[in-house]
Amino acid sequence: MTTSTTADSPPTDDPRPDGLRVARSLVVVFTGHGKGKSSAAFGTALRARARQWPVAVVQFLKSDNWVTGEQLMAEPLGMEFWSLGEGFTWNSDDLTRDEAVAQEAWRHGKALVQAGTHRLVVFDEITYPLNWGWIDASDVEATFRDRPERVSLVLTGRDAPQWMVDLADTVTEMQKVSHVYDRGVRAKKGIDY
Amino acid sequence: MTTSTTADSPPTDDPRPDGLRVARSLVVVFTGHGKGKSSAAFGTALRARARQWPVAVVQFLKSDNWVTGEQLMAEPLGMEFWSLGEGFTWNSDDLTRDEAVAQEAWRHGKALVQAGTHRLVVFDEITYPLNWGWIDASDVEATFRDRPERVSLVLTGRDAPQWMVDLADTVTEMQKVSHVYDRGVRAKKGIDY
Repeated sequence: MTTSTTADSPPTDDPRPDGLRVARSLVVVFTGHGKGKSSAAFGTALRARARQWPVAVVQFLKSDNWVTGEQLMAEPLGMEFWSLGEGFTWNSDDLTRDEAVAQEAWRHGKALVQAGTHRLVVFDEITYPLNWGWIDASDVEATFRDRPERVSLVLTGRDAPQWMVDLADTVTEMQKVSHVYDRGVRAKKGIDY
Repeated sequence: MTTSTTADSPPTDDPRPDGLRVARSLVVVFTGHGKGKSSAAFGTALRARARQWPVAVVQFLKSDNWVTGEQLMAEPLGMEFWSLGEGFTWNSDDLTRDEAVAQEAWRHGKALVQAGTHRLVVFDEITYPLNWGWIDASDVEATFRDRPERVSLVLTGRDAPQWMVDLADTVTEMQKVSHVYDRGVRAKKGIDY
Protein backbone atom coordinates (compact mmCIF):
# COMPACT_ATOMS: atom_id res chain seq x y z
CA MET A 1 0.00 0.00 0.00
CA THR A 2 1.41 3.38 -0.96
CA THR A 3 -0.72 5.54 1.22
CA SER A 4 0.03 9.23 1.29
CA THR A 5 -0.41 10.57 4.79
CA THR A 6 1.00 14.03 4.25
CA ALA A 7 -1.28 16.79 5.40
CA ASP A 8 -0.97 18.94 2.31
CA SER A 9 -2.49 16.67 -0.29
CA PRO A 10 -5.53 14.43 -0.25
CA PRO A 11 -4.91 10.71 0.16
CA THR A 12 -5.52 8.76 -3.00
CA ASP A 13 -5.42 5.31 -1.47
CA ASP A 14 -7.59 3.95 1.29
CA PRO A 15 -5.30 4.08 4.34
CA ARG A 16 -7.26 1.40 6.16
CA PRO A 17 -5.52 -1.93 6.49
CA ASP A 18 -6.86 -4.85 4.49
CA GLY A 19 -8.36 -8.00 5.90
CA LEU A 20 -9.89 -6.56 9.02
CA ARG A 21 -12.35 -8.65 10.95
CA VAL A 22 -15.65 -7.47 12.38
CA ALA A 23 -15.70 -7.27 16.16
CA ARG A 24 -18.83 -8.24 18.06
CA SER A 25 -18.27 -5.26 20.32
CA LEU A 26 -15.65 -2.64 21.11
CA VAL A 27 -14.19 -0.98 24.17
CA VAL A 28 -13.36 2.67 23.51
CA VAL A 29 -11.48 4.84 26.03
CA PHE A 30 -11.27 8.63 25.98
CA THR A 31 -8.66 9.79 28.46
CA GLY A 32 -6.12 12.60 28.95
CA HIS A 33 -6.32 16.05 30.47
CA GLY A 34 -7.78 17.89 27.48
CA LYS A 35 -11.39 18.76 26.75
CA GLY A 36 -13.73 16.54 24.78
CA LYS A 37 -13.74 13.22 26.61
CA SER A 38 -17.38 13.28 27.72
CA SER A 39 -18.38 15.07 24.53
CA ALA A 40 -16.82 12.31 22.45
CA ALA A 41 -18.57 9.70 24.60
CA PHE A 42 -21.92 11.34 23.99
CA GLY A 43 -21.20 11.81 20.31
CA THR A 44 -20.52 8.08 20.14
CA ALA A 45 -23.72 7.34 22.04
CA LEU A 46 -25.55 9.48 19.50
CA ARG A 47 -24.19 7.34 16.67
CA ALA A 48 -25.24 4.20 18.48
CA ARG A 49 -28.77 5.58 18.91
CA ALA A 50 -28.79 6.48 15.20
CA ARG A 51 -28.32 2.76 14.54
CA GLN A 52 -31.17 1.95 16.94
CA TRP A 53 -28.88 0.47 19.55
CA PRO A 54 -30.21 0.44 23.11
CA VAL A 55 -27.82 2.79 24.96
CA ALA A 56 -27.28 3.37 28.66
CA VAL A 57 -25.13 6.00 30.32
CA VAL A 58 -23.73 5.95 33.84
CA GLN A 59 -22.23 9.32 34.72
CA PHE A 60 -20.10 9.11 37.83
CA LEU A 61 -19.21 12.60 38.90
CA LYS A 62 -21.25 15.34 37.28
CA SER A 63 -23.82 16.61 39.67
CA ASP A 64 -27.55 16.14 39.64
CA ASN A 65 -27.75 19.73 40.83
CA TRP A 66 -25.67 20.95 37.93
CA VAL A 67 -27.73 19.42 35.14
CA THR A 68 -25.65 18.70 32.08
CA GLY A 69 -26.77 19.19 28.51
CA GLU A 70 -26.18 15.53 27.80
CA GLN A 71 -28.50 14.60 30.64
CA LEU A 72 -31.24 16.85 29.27
CA MET A 73 -30.91 15.21 25.85
CA ALA A 74 -30.69 11.61 27.05
CA GLU A 75 -34.41 11.07 27.47
CA PRO A 76 -35.52 12.55 24.12
CA LEU A 77 -32.79 10.44 22.49
CA GLY A 78 -34.03 7.31 24.17
CA MET A 79 -30.90 6.75 26.23
CA GLU A 80 -31.16 5.43 29.74
CA PHE A 81 -29.24 7.79 31.95
CA TRP A 82 -28.01 7.46 35.52
CA SER A 83 -26.19 10.31 37.13
CA LEU A 84 -25.65 8.88 40.58
CA GLY A 85 -22.59 10.91 41.36
CA GLU A 86 -22.70 13.79 43.74
CA GLY A 87 -20.95 16.36 41.60
CA PHE A 88 -17.48 17.69 41.95
CA THR A 89 -15.83 16.39 45.07
CA TRP A 90 -14.76 19.88 46.08
CA ASN A 91 -18.41 20.75 46.69
CA SER A 92 -18.85 17.79 48.95
CA ASP A 93 -18.88 17.87 52.71
CA ASP A 94 -18.88 14.12 53.05
CA LEU A 95 -16.40 12.17 50.95
CA THR A 96 -17.38 8.92 52.65
CA ARG A 97 -20.89 9.39 51.37
CA ASP A 98 -19.55 10.22 47.89
CA GLU A 99 -17.62 6.97 47.95
CA ALA A 100 -20.75 5.01 48.84
CA VAL A 101 -22.67 6.75 46.06
CA ALA A 102 -19.95 5.87 43.53
CA GLN A 103 -20.14 2.25 44.67
CA GLU A 104 -23.89 2.29 44.17
CA ALA A 105 -23.40 3.72 40.66
CA TRP A 106 -20.93 0.94 39.89
CA ARG A 107 -23.27 -1.81 41.17
CA HIS A 108 -25.92 -0.39 38.88
CA GLY A 109 -23.55 -0.14 35.90
CA LYS A 110 -22.25 -3.65 36.48
CA ALA A 111 -25.79 -5.03 36.43
CA LEU A 112 -26.47 -3.13 33.21
CA VAL A 113 -23.42 -4.64 31.48
CA GLN A 114 -24.12 -8.15 32.69
CA ALA A 115 -27.79 -7.99 31.66
CA GLY A 116 -26.62 -7.49 28.08
CA THR A 117 -29.75 -5.65 27.01
CA HIS A 118 -27.86 -2.50 25.99
CA ARG A 119 -25.51 -2.63 23.04
CA LEU A 120 -23.58 0.36 24.32
CA VAL A 121 -22.95 1.32 27.92
CA VAL A 122 -21.10 4.58 28.58
CA PHE A 123 -19.25 4.91 31.88
CA ASP A 124 -18.55 8.62 31.94
CA GLU A 125 -15.76 9.73 34.32
CA ILE A 126 -15.28 6.22 35.68
CA THR A 127 -11.51 6.62 35.97
CA TYR A 128 -11.85 8.93 38.98
CA PRO A 129 -13.57 6.56 41.41
CA LEU A 130 -11.25 3.83 40.09
CA ASN A 131 -8.10 5.85 40.69
CA TRP A 132 -9.30 7.01 44.10
CA GLY A 133 -9.93 3.43 45.16
CA TRP A 134 -13.65 4.06 45.64
CA ILE A 135 -14.68 1.15 43.43
CA ASP A 136 -12.92 -2.19 43.11
CA ALA A 137 -10.71 -2.13 40.01
CA SER A 138 -10.49 -5.91 39.76
CA ASP A 139 -14.28 -6.19 39.80
CA VAL A 140 -14.60 -3.50 37.12
CA GLU A 141 -11.92 -5.08 34.95
CA ALA A 142 -13.46 -8.56 35.20
CA THR A 143 -16.95 -7.20 34.48
CA PHE A 144 -15.75 -5.38 31.38
CA ARG A 145 -13.55 -8.24 30.15
CA ASP A 146 -16.22 -10.92 30.64
CA ARG A 147 -19.12 -8.83 29.32
CA PRO A 148 -21.75 -10.26 26.98
CA GLU A 149 -20.16 -10.31 23.54
CA ARG A 150 -22.43 -7.75 21.91
CA VAL A 151 -22.07 -5.10 24.61
CA SER A 152 -19.74 -2.25 23.62
CA LEU A 153 -18.31 0.12 26.21
CA VAL A 154 -17.17 3.73 26.17
CA LEU A 155 -15.09 4.73 29.19
CA THR A 156 -13.93 8.25 29.99
CA GLY A 157 -11.82 10.20 32.46
CA ARG A 158 -8.29 11.35 33.07
CA ASP A 159 -5.49 8.92 33.81
CA ALA A 160 -7.03 5.70 32.51
CA PRO A 161 -5.39 2.82 34.40
CA GLN A 162 -3.11 0.54 32.39
CA TRP A 163 -5.45 -2.45 32.56
CA MET A 164 -8.14 -0.32 30.90
CA VAL A 165 -5.78 0.72 28.10
CA ASP A 166 -4.81 -2.92 27.61
CA LEU A 167 -8.43 -4.07 27.54
CA ALA A 168 -9.58 -1.37 25.11
CA ASP A 169 -9.75 -1.66 21.35
CA THR A 170 -9.29 2.08 20.84
CA VAL A 171 -7.73 4.54 23.26
CA THR A 172 -7.54 8.25 22.57
CA GLU A 173 -5.67 10.66 24.79
CA MET A 174 -7.16 14.13 24.69
CA GLN A 175 -4.25 16.49 25.16
CA LYS A 176 -4.74 20.09 26.06
CA VAL A 177 -3.10 22.39 23.53
CA SER A 178 -4.82 25.46 24.91
CA HIS A 179 -7.82 25.96 27.13
CA VAL A 180 -10.26 28.77 27.54
CA TYR A 181 -9.30 29.08 31.23
CA ASP A 182 -5.88 30.23 30.06
CA ARG A 183 -7.56 33.24 28.49
CA GLY A 184 -9.49 34.04 31.65
CA VAL A 185 -12.77 32.81 30.20
CA ARG A 186 -15.29 30.65 32.07
CA ALA A 187 -16.71 27.35 30.94
CA LYS A 188 -19.76 28.12 28.83
CA LYS A 189 -23.15 26.50 29.17
CA GLY A 190 -24.15 25.05 25.81
CA ILE A 191 -20.53 24.28 24.93
CA ASP A 192 -18.77 22.90 27.98
CA TYR A 193 -21.72 21.39 29.84
CA MET B 1 -4.92 27.89 45.68
CA THR B 2 -3.73 24.54 47.00
CA THR B 3 -5.27 22.33 44.41
CA SER B 4 -4.47 18.66 44.53
CA THR B 5 -4.16 17.32 41.01
CA THR B 6 -2.80 13.91 41.81
CA ALA B 7 -4.73 11.10 40.25
CA ASP B 8 -4.99 8.96 43.34
CA SER B 9 -7.04 11.20 45.58
CA PRO B 10 -10.09 13.36 44.92
CA PRO B 11 -9.49 17.10 44.64
CA THR B 12 -10.76 19.01 47.65
CA ASP B 13 -10.44 22.49 46.16
CA ASP B 14 -12.04 23.80 43.02
CA PRO B 15 -9.18 23.70 40.48
CA ARG B 16 -10.81 26.33 38.29
CA PRO B 17 -9.11 29.73 38.32
CA ASP B 18 -10.91 32.59 40.03
CA GLY B 19 -12.18 35.73 38.35
CA LEU B 20 -13.00 34.26 34.98
CA ARG B 21 -15.10 36.33 32.58
CA VAL B 22 -18.00 35.08 30.49
CA ALA B 23 -17.28 34.92 26.78
CA ARG B 24 -19.98 35.82 24.27
CA SER B 25 -18.91 32.87 22.17
CA LEU B 26 -16.13 30.31 21.93
CA VAL B 27 -14.05 28.69 19.24
CA VAL B 28 -13.27 25.07 20.05
CA VAL B 29 -10.87 22.95 17.97
CA PHE B 30 -10.59 19.16 18.08
CA THR B 31 -7.51 18.08 16.15
CA GLY B 32 -4.87 15.35 16.20
CA HIS B 33 -4.67 11.89 14.67
CA GLY B 34 -6.66 10.02 17.33
CA LYS B 35 -10.31 9.04 17.30
CA GLY B 36 -13.05 11.18 18.77
CA LYS B 37 -12.77 14.52 16.97
CA SER B 38 -16.11 14.38 15.15
CA SER B 39 -17.69 12.55 18.08
CA ALA B 40 -16.65 15.36 20.42
CA ALA B 41 -17.99 17.93 17.96
CA PHE B 42 -21.36 16.20 17.89
CA GLY B 43 -21.38 15.74 21.63
CA THR B 44 -20.83 19.49 21.94
CA ALA B 45 -23.61 20.15 19.43
CA LEU B 46 -25.85 17.96 21.56
CA ARG B 47 -25.14 20.12 24.60
CA ALA B 48 -25.89 23.25 22.62
CA ARG B 49 -29.22 21.80 21.50
CA ALA B 50 -29.97 20.89 25.13
CA ARG B 51 -29.72 24.63 25.85
CA GLN B 52 -32.06 25.36 22.94
CA TRP B 53 -29.33 26.90 20.83
CA PRO B 54 -29.91 26.89 17.07
CA VAL B 55 -27.15 24.60 15.74
CA ALA B 56 -25.86 24.06 12.22
CA VAL B 57 -23.36 21.47 11.04
CA VAL B 58 -21.30 21.56 7.86
CA GLN B 59 -19.57 18.24 7.31
CA PHE B 60 -16.84 18.50 4.71
CA LEU B 61 -15.71 15.03 3.85
CA LYS B 62 -17.97 12.26 5.02
CA SER B 63 -19.98 10.92 2.18
CA ASP B 64 -23.64 11.30 1.47
CA ASN B 65 -23.49 7.71 0.27
CA TRP B 66 -22.02 6.54 3.54
CA VAL B 67 -24.62 8.02 5.85
CA THR B 68 -23.21 8.79 9.26
CA GLY B 69 -25.00 8.26 12.53
CA GLU B 70 -24.66 11.94 13.33
CA GLN B 71 -26.39 12.81 10.08
CA LEU B 72 -29.29 10.48 10.88
CA MET B 73 -29.69 12.13 14.28
CA ALA B 74 -29.34 15.75 13.15
CA GLU B 75 -32.91 16.20 11.99
CA PRO B 76 -34.64 14.68 15.05
CA LEU B 77 -32.33 16.84 17.19
CA GLY B 78 -33.29 19.97 15.28
CA MET B 79 -29.81 20.59 13.88
CA GLU B 80 -29.39 21.92 10.40
CA PHE B 81 -27.02 19.58 8.62
CA TRP B 82 -25.14 19.96 5.37
CA SER B 83 -22.96 17.14 4.18
CA LEU B 84 -21.76 18.57 0.91
CA GLY B 85 -18.56 16.61 0.78
CA GLU B 86 -18.13 13.73 -1.55
CA GLY B 87 -16.79 11.21 0.89
CA PHE B 88 -13.28 9.94 1.25
CA THR B 89 -11.07 11.25 -1.49
CA TRP B 90 -9.76 7.79 -2.26
CA ASN B 91 -13.20 6.84 -3.55
CA SER B 92 -13.25 9.80 -5.86
CA ASP B 93 -12.54 9.71 -9.56
CA ASP B 94 -12.55 13.47 -9.92
CA LEU B 95 -10.57 15.47 -7.38
CA THR B 96 -11.26 18.70 -9.26
CA ARG B 97 -14.95 18.16 -8.70
CA ASP B 98 -14.30 17.38 -5.02
CA GLU B 99 -12.47 20.66 -4.72
CA ALA B 100 -15.39 22.57 -6.22
CA VAL B 101 -17.80 20.79 -3.87
CA ALA B 102 -15.65 21.75 -0.85
CA GLN B 103 -15.68 25.35 -2.02
CA GLU B 104 -19.47 25.23 -2.30
CA ALA B 105 -19.66 23.82 1.24
CA TRP B 106 -17.45 26.63 2.49
CA ARG B 107 -19.54 29.34 0.76
CA HIS B 108 -22.57 27.85 2.47
CA GLY B 109 -20.84 27.67 5.86
CA LYS B 110 -19.53 31.20 5.55
CA ALA B 111 -23.04 32.51 4.88
CA LEU B 112 -24.29 30.57 7.91
CA VAL B 113 -21.70 32.14 10.22
CA GLN B 114 -22.22 35.65 8.88
CA ALA B 115 -26.01 35.40 9.16
CA GLY B 116 -25.57 34.93 12.90
CA THR B 117 -28.80 33.00 13.33
CA HIS B 118 -27.09 29.91 14.71
CA ARG B 119 -25.38 30.09 18.07
CA LEU B 120 -23.18 27.12 17.20
CA VAL B 121 -21.82 26.19 13.81
CA VAL B 122 -19.80 22.99 13.55
CA PHE B 123 -17.31 22.70 10.69
CA ASP B 124 -16.53 19.01 10.78
CA GLU B 125 -13.31 17.97 9.01
CA ILE B 126 -12.64 21.49 7.75
CA THR B 127 -8.87 21.18 8.22
CA TYR B 128 -8.55 18.86 5.23
CA PRO B 129 -9.81 21.21 2.49
CA LEU B 130 -7.86 23.98 4.23
CA ASN B 131 -4.61 22.04 4.28
CA TRP B 132 -5.06 20.85 0.71
CA GLY B 133 -5.56 24.41 -0.49
CA TRP B 134 -9.09 23.68 -1.69
CA ILE B 135 -10.62 26.57 0.26
CA ASP B 136 -9.03 29.95 0.92
CA ALA B 137 -7.48 29.96 4.40
CA SER B 138 -7.40 33.74 4.68
CA ASP B 139 -11.11 33.92 3.88
CA VAL B 140 -11.89 31.22 6.43
CA GLU B 141 -9.74 32.88 9.11
CA ALA B 142 -11.28 36.30 8.55
CA THR B 143 -14.81 34.87 8.56
CA PHE B 144 -14.21 33.06 11.84
CA ARG B 145 -12.38 35.98 13.48
CA ASP B 146 -14.95 38.59 12.45
CA ARG B 147 -18.00 36.44 13.16
CA PRO B 148 -21.09 37.79 14.94
CA GLU B 149 -20.22 37.87 18.62
CA ARG B 150 -22.73 35.27 19.78
CA VAL B 151 -21.76 32.63 17.21
CA SER B 152 -19.61 29.83 18.66
CA LEU B 153 -17.64 27.50 16.42
CA VAL B 154 -16.46 23.93 16.69
CA LEU B 155 -13.78 22.98 14.15
CA THR B 156 -12.40 19.49 13.60
CA GLY B 157 -9.82 17.60 11.61
CA ARG B 158 -6.20 16.52 11.73
CA ASP B 159 -3.36 19.02 11.55
CA ALA B 160 -5.20 22.20 12.51
CA PRO B 161 -3.28 25.13 10.99
CA GLN B 162 -1.49 27.47 13.40
CA TRP B 163 -3.83 30.40 12.76
CA MET B 164 -6.74 28.20 13.84
CA VAL B 165 -4.97 27.20 17.06
CA ASP B 166 -4.20 30.87 17.72
CA LEU B 167 -7.79 31.94 17.08
CA ALA B 168 -9.34 29.22 19.22
CA ASP B 169 -10.26 29.48 22.88
CA THR B 170 -9.84 25.75 23.49
CA VAL B 171 -7.77 23.33 21.43
CA THR B 172 -7.64 19.63 22.15
CA GLU B 173 -5.32 17.27 20.36
CA MET B 174 -6.70 13.77 20.16
CA GLN B 175 -3.70 11.48 20.29
CA LYS B 176 -3.92 7.87 19.32
CA VAL B 177 -2.76 5.59 22.11
CA SER B 178 -4.11 2.50 20.43
CA HIS B 179 -6.57 1.92 17.67
CA VAL B 180 -8.83 -0.95 16.80
CA TYR B 181 -7.12 -1.25 13.38
CA ASP B 182 -3.98 -2.31 15.22
CA ARG B 183 -5.88 -5.36 16.43
CA GLY B 184 -7.13 -6.19 12.96
CA VAL B 185 -10.66 -5.05 13.70
CA ARG B 186 -12.82 -2.98 11.35
CA ALA B 187 -14.50 0.31 12.16
CA LYS B 188 -17.89 -0.54 13.62
CA LYS B 189 -21.19 0.99 12.61
CA GLY B 190 -22.86 2.43 15.69
CA ILE B 191 -19.51 3.29 17.26
CA ASP B 192 -17.20 4.71 14.64
CA TYR B 193 -19.74 6.17 12.20
